[in-house]
Amino acid sequence: MERAYSRIRKYAQRTPLLKGTFLDDLWQAEVYVKCEQFQPVGAFKIRGAANFALQLSEEDRKRGLLTHSSGNHAQAVAYMAHKMGITATVVMPTNSSNTKKEGAKKWGAEIIECEPTIEARITTVNKVRQEKGGVIIPPFDHEWIIEGQGTCAMEIIAEIPNIEVVAAPLGGGGLLSGTAVASEYFGREIDVIGCEPEKAADGYEGKRTGKRIEKYTPNTVADGLRTTVGEVPFPLIKEKVKDIWLAREEDILPWMYRVWKEMKVIIEPSSAVVLAAMDSNKEAIKGKKVALIITGGNVDIDKV
Amino acid sequence: MERAYSRIRKYAQRTPLLKGTFLDDLWQAEVYVKCEQFQPVGAFKIRGAANFALQLSEEDRKRGLLTHSSGNHAQAVAYMAHKMGITATVVMPTNSSNTKKEGAKKWGAEIIECEPTIEARITTVNKVRQEKGGVIIPPFDHEWIIEGQGTCAMEIIAEIPNIEVVAAPLGGGGLLSGTAVASEYFGREIDVIGCEPEKAADGYEGKRTGKRIEKYTPNTVADGLRTTVGEVPFPLIKEKVKDIWLAREEDILPWMYRVWKEMKVIIEPSSAVVLAAMDSNKEAIKGKKVALIITGGNVDIDKV
Repeated sequence: MERAYSRIRKYAQRTPLLKGTFLDDLWQAEVYVKCEQFQPVGAFKIRGAANFALQLSEEDRKRGLLTHSSGNHAQAVAYMAHKMGITATVVMPTNSSNTKKEGAKKWGAEIIECEPTIEARITTVNKVRQEKGGVIIPPFDHEWIIEGQGTCAMEIIAEIPNIEVVAAPLGGGGLLSGTAVASEYFGREIDVIGCEPEKAADGYEGKRTGKRIEKYTPNTVADGLRTTVGEVPFPLIKEKVKDIWLAREEDILPWMYRVWKEMKVIIEPSSAVVLAAMDSNKEAIKGKKVALIITGGNVDIDKV
Repeated sequence: MERAYSRIRKYAQRTPLLKGTFLDDLWQAEVYVKCEQFQPVGAFKIRGAANFALQLSEEDRKRGLLTHSSGNHAQAVAYMAHKMGITATVVMPTNSSNTKKEGAKKWGAEIIECEPTIEARITTVNKVRQEKGGVIIPPFDHEWIIEGQGTCAMEIIAEIPNIEVVAAPLGGGGLLSGTAVASEYFGREIDVIGCEPEKAADGYEGKRTGKRIEKYTPNTVADGLRTTVGEVPFPLIKEKVKDIWLAREEDILPWMYRVWKEMKVIIEPSSAVVLAAMDSNKEAIKGKKVALIITGGNVDIDKV
């Protein structure tokens, strides 16, 4: 992970950790907010995508990058292809936000739309690969991606070595498992908490039962979390994550606007899931030093 | 100003200077954005208000704080009174944004509304002082305020000592004159640029003719800049500011949304004035290291 950190430094910024003053008062804790929405693509996904793409051979690079994503990972892959001077093709579900589609187009990627199911995404990617070729950059289910995403927690710990709780949203599990690995290795007894919408609670169920849920149809306003936990992240989450907390569906958007208003930063619904879940569990973080990972800020502002 | 900086540190945060990547490409310059909207009251005004209030005698403090403001200064005075355990009364024009009114109320200040003219504001403040007493904290027309606001540029220069251009909006002139004084004293040949809406261009006219414009009715969407340049800031601006650049009125809101979207930070119309004015003068900053002071983020999000 330290090697990943040096590798991606030119592409992923070290993002600021803001003091969440209004949260301190509300939760009686010392709260910090890690602003990954300030990354070049507006989300943490650049970390994993950069770490993967930069390890490809010259030959693989020439084949071009290929991925499926509801948005932020697509933008990250498109951005990396642009920076590396190679091509990118991204399969995006029809219900992706306009901001995310435009973001991927802006960096010159070819967008191919598909039905908004995980099966359609995988089928379409495989079809594209057969027809046009390309190296698939997985959104979360690979150790290079997990290592890249873990660099976010490395930065938090470097800035606040005695941080006690680090919370991240849980979708496919790349960020959460990377956070858990980094916290175990670089931190001093950090409790890592995953946060999920109650309508995408496969990670919560999986952690509770000890078995990964493979069939689940997420149905949440948090568009970045409409996916199920991957095979590679699952055992790491099972072993190293302290707990999964759920956000009530109706709390997600109000928390998103509240952060816009109180902190003057744009966060997307997936990031608001962390705040909603923390607020429902505030007794558990009372008096603690807590860092919340704000994963992204790609939301259609003209639709709010 | 160095003494002011130590004085206010407990109240005003050192705000982050973000890299404005999309602006680099657009203007072919190296652009940094100083995020004063992350101050506790959502605007730079806390710097001047803190520097003033903390220099009051015990006796004056007991009389309570009093001010008139369209919003951000009101919030700053209310916040300082709350932190110092004293009372605050603020006169606000009826057309202040709800966010700014709520902000002042949140810190326990008494709000008195008045007609949205500078005369009504001054008459009302004087009436309140006669009836209830209180020490007036001026929004800009005092050297303690100017010193406090100048600490923002001090922070920019401490972070990027070879910064070449620093731009700030121009309303009453407290921030711009403070920026000019700090840049002269701490910087290496910095060009300080003031940015005004074309419908509140009294500073531009005053600088051009060398005489402060006293009668002017600003009429701009940038609510924080609906005021005329004060007596104390004017000569400093005349002497130390390189130029005043105008923002086209119709460019202000589009630039506000563009920054929300591209940088994931909330800025208010007054701050967007700086971006709109820079964009109209981009040839002049080509190849330079430029810092833009984002003065605040207090905007009614539910109205956008």
